[in-house]
Amino acid sequence: MLGTGTVGQTVGGKLAGLGHDVCMGSRTPDNEGAAAWVERTGEHASQGTFADAAAFGNEIVVNATPGAVSLDVLHAAGADNLAGKILLDISNPLDFSRGMPPTLTVCNTDSLGEQIQRAFPDARVVKSLNTMNARVMVDPGSVRGPHTVFVAGDDHVARWQVKQLLLQFGWRGDAIFEFDGIAKARGLEMYLPLWLALRGAIGDRPFNIKVAS
Amino acid sequence: MLGTGTVGQTVGGKLAGLGHDVCMGSRTPDNEGAAAWVERTGEHASQGTFADAAAFGNEIVVNATPGAVSLDVLHAAGADNLAGKILLDISNPLDFSRGMPPTLTVCNTDSLGEQIQRAFPDARVVKSLNTMNARVMVDPGSVRGPHTVFVAGDDHVARWQVKQLLLQFGWRGDAIFEFDGIAKARGLEMYLPLWLALRGAIGDRPFNIKVAS
Repeated sequence: MLGTGTVGQTVGGKLAGLGHDVCMGSRTPDNEGAAAWVERTGEHASQGTFADAAAFGNEIVVNATPGAVSLDVLHAAGADNLAGKILLDISNPLDFSRGMPPTLTVCNTDSLGEQIQRAFPDARVVKSLNTMNARVMVDPGSVRGPHTVFVAGDDHVARWQVKQLLLQFGWRGDAIFEFDGIAKARGLEMYLPLWLALRGAIGDRPFNIKVAS
Repeated sequence: MLGTGTVGQTVGGKLAGLGHDVCMGSRTPDNEGAAAWVERTGEHASQGTFADAAAFGNEIVVNATPGAVSLDVLHAAGADNLAGKILLDISNPLDFSRGMPPTLTVCNTDSLGEQIQRAFPDARVVKSLNTMNARVMVDPGSVRGPHTVFVAGDDHVARWQVKQLLLQFGWRGDAIFEFDGIAKARGLEMYLPLWLALRGAIGDRPFNIKVAS
């Protein structure tokens, strides 16, 4: 698990609760947030540097860092530690430097998901879960009625494995909408301004969108 | 009704069918597509230039032109013909010049809806219906289950009047999600890449998204 923020702690906690061994990576091996998370999570939880965490994740590496720093973090994690692995990219390229609402650091003709796949061609990047807040990611039942989680990536086996993880999180199979191609990350990231507008109108209540057809 | 394409013909036809008098505007007063639409629609339908149509619309002017030409069309329609009126903006700033899928001509730090409101400060711009195809706009029952239409604009009375129109089109009151501020057009337009990805995966079947909370 790369990232010690709300997404990293929530998704990492869910994974550990399901019995997966999780190493939370940060810039320093003794990050206080990660230490508190390890203490709170108990069994199956450990911490280390980004490189430690990426090396530890022999099945899947999760990018839960802020999009603005994700490429730097992944370089710190090391291409060798990512090669051949599934890289579940939950990040959004939000730029808070211009004030609120945030804009995107990349969009329209490219996406962060694509940039990550290009920068780490041996990783199997799957974009998912970036279109909702952390609680909804691991507790889809917190939203009333059916709703949708998207999965986009070039590698269909990697997409399938991420789908298995989503099913473990409690997502229904018919709630998972799969896109063939990491290029679809563009649409998933450019949805963020609408998500932010919805967040502003709805408030703290868990919400999501459902594809109806 | 500004625009003679599928959206203009479909929404114009629905309006005329509901008993509203509709003038379809185009660059020339004798546009063949508009003429065929008038012939087909019969009662309540007429045609003219963009300026004719904007002058005709004493309650509401609808921008159903391609986003790449919308500002030019609205200038041709004339600021005087738009002043004080509701300008329902259905357009999307799609740029097909770079190939498929289209990109956006404006996004992230601005939107076409905002550009239109700035260019025509005396018009009461309301962005709506741009997040679905023409059939779904006027036949929400074509999509199975509940789904959402967004309404964004600075003027709450204008938003209210657009909502009345949506109710006439068959939208349920609880399907209408209202945003205070035309700046939210940014999110509604930046949703298009996701819509295009969904369109590619779903095909011709009518679809939309629902906000679930």
